[in-house]
Amino acid sequence: MIGIFDSGVGGLTVAKECLRQLPEYDLVYFGDTARTPYGNKSRDAIIKYALEDADFLIKKGAKLLIVACNTVSALAYDVLKEKYPNVPIFEVITPAVNEALAGTKNHRIGVIGTRATVQSGIYERKLKEAKDVFVESRACPLFVPLIEENWIKHPELKIIARRYLSAFRDHNIDTLILGCTHYPLIKDVIAQRIGKRVRMVDSATALAGKIKKYLEANPEIAGKLGKTGNSEFYVSDLTEQCQCIANRALGKNIKFHQV
Amino acid sequence: MIGIFDSGVGGLTVAKECLRQLPEYDLVYFGDTARTPYGNKSRDAIIKYALEDADFLIKKGAKLLIVACNTVSALAYDVLKEKYPNVPIFEVITPAVNEALAGTKNHRIGVIGTRATVQSGIYERKLKEAKDVFVESRACPLFVPLIEENWIKHPELKIIARRYLSAFRDHNIDTLILGCTHYPLIKDVIAQRIGKRVRMVDSATALAGKIKKYLEANPEIAGKLGKTGNSEFYVSDLTEQCQCIANRALGKNIKFHQV
Repeated sequence: MIGIFDSGVGGLTVAKECLRQLPEYDLVYFGDTARTPYGNKSRDAIIKYALEDADFLIKKGAKLLIVACNTVSALAYDVLKEKYPNVPIFEVITPAVNEALAGTKNHRIGVIGTRATVQSGIYERKLKEAKDVFVESRACPLFVPLIEENWIKHPELKIIARRYLSAFRDHNIDTLILGCTHYPLIKDVIAQRIGKRVRMVDSATALAGKIKKYLEANPEIAGKLGKTGNSEFYVSDLTEQCQCIANRALGKNIKFHQV
Repeated sequence: MIGIFDSGVGGLTVAKECLRQLPEYDLVYFGDTARTPYGNKSRDAIIKYALEDADFLIKKGAKLLIVACNTVSALAYDVLKEKYPNVPIFEVITPAVNEALAGTKNHRIGVIGTRATVQSGIYERKLKEAKDVFVESRACPLFVPLIEENWIKHPELKIIARRYLSAFRDHNIDTLILGCTHYPLIKDVIAQRIGKRVRMVDSATALAGKIKKYLEANPEIAGKLGKTGNSEFYVSDLTEQCQCIANRALGKNIKFHQV
């Protein structure tokens, strides 16, 4: 079973890609909606929650873990690896970094994410470790509540996007990393603001592709994962609002179990 | 010791009034910043958190509890009373309801709050039980994140306030209940939008006055509370952002303990 977890239901944009690219594998998703959002919380809180989330999935039978949350990937990946040295764990940052580096022509890259992700400096560090690039990062903490309110088509979102993203125009970036799993849901608004020349990169597609290759190269791991095409979705708090965002993120209705 | 709790640091607007009106009493505050916000969460989650928050304060020695959170007051007050039948527990809804009813001339009252508070219908119920009034309620879920981002002077707040509050103009209300402890921090913006004729009511002042009278009338309770003028502030997750909102809400720097 492939286990995917997120601070809430934004990570379903990652689950959707896994279901598309790895439809044969069993999948279990956990969204910590009772404590969402993680993005404004402290490193200690994020690590504690991440370990509990992973424990839940391991107990459910997950043999491979996907951290479908940039904030957790930024702050808790090392701790997760340490706790589960024998479980393959995939995070969402490296695939986005690689895709951005492969795509940029002028070596000028923008990054947007939650406050915790941006303050961690992880994107900037990984990008610069790999290549001599210019990086401009910006926290956009109001995007998540706006998306969760479903204000996706509202002019207010565009106005706030302008405040957050205008600075990127001065920096002549050609690539923007969407460093939060919610952001693909407002791709159009972001594109309008940063200009159509700028290529947007999110982790979901690249990550699912990476896992597919990994499982082909590691049949002993692939053999441990169930292959009945079954998928289960758990949240720690089930509300109408979370069901509504989930349906939008996944593009279909799903049945959640509350734990 | 008087115990005050909230889903986060917004309840410090209530603590501030208690410190002003009841300076001689010892006070202990708890803000559940690790799980904030409560306002979009389910009834079950809110009740569970409220009981844990109250337990913490009781263990710290609180002999009187103040629920400085509208969402908890709306959804968990009865459960708290049942669990602690011998502890006086004050919530923030009744004082605001009474003040609104005492002040309204045309018997047309507006209410704003979190989604959970507004959906509970508690303000409407309490107002109508007491008097034959017209009530118009509106959830304003983005106000809390905007305030927590300190976008208090930003034009974006005004634009969002316009969307939330315009409908009140058509209803000819003369009183608006600020049904969330964060909202007094953006009183000016709300006033601009609903018009200066409309009187705004928040619980903090009325509640502290009510407790003062209660303690004068119940010296056996007052005698159980420490009177060294000491105050302690606890949060479940301490971040720079929460410290910053806290200082603004309380109008002075405070030292938090993390638990």
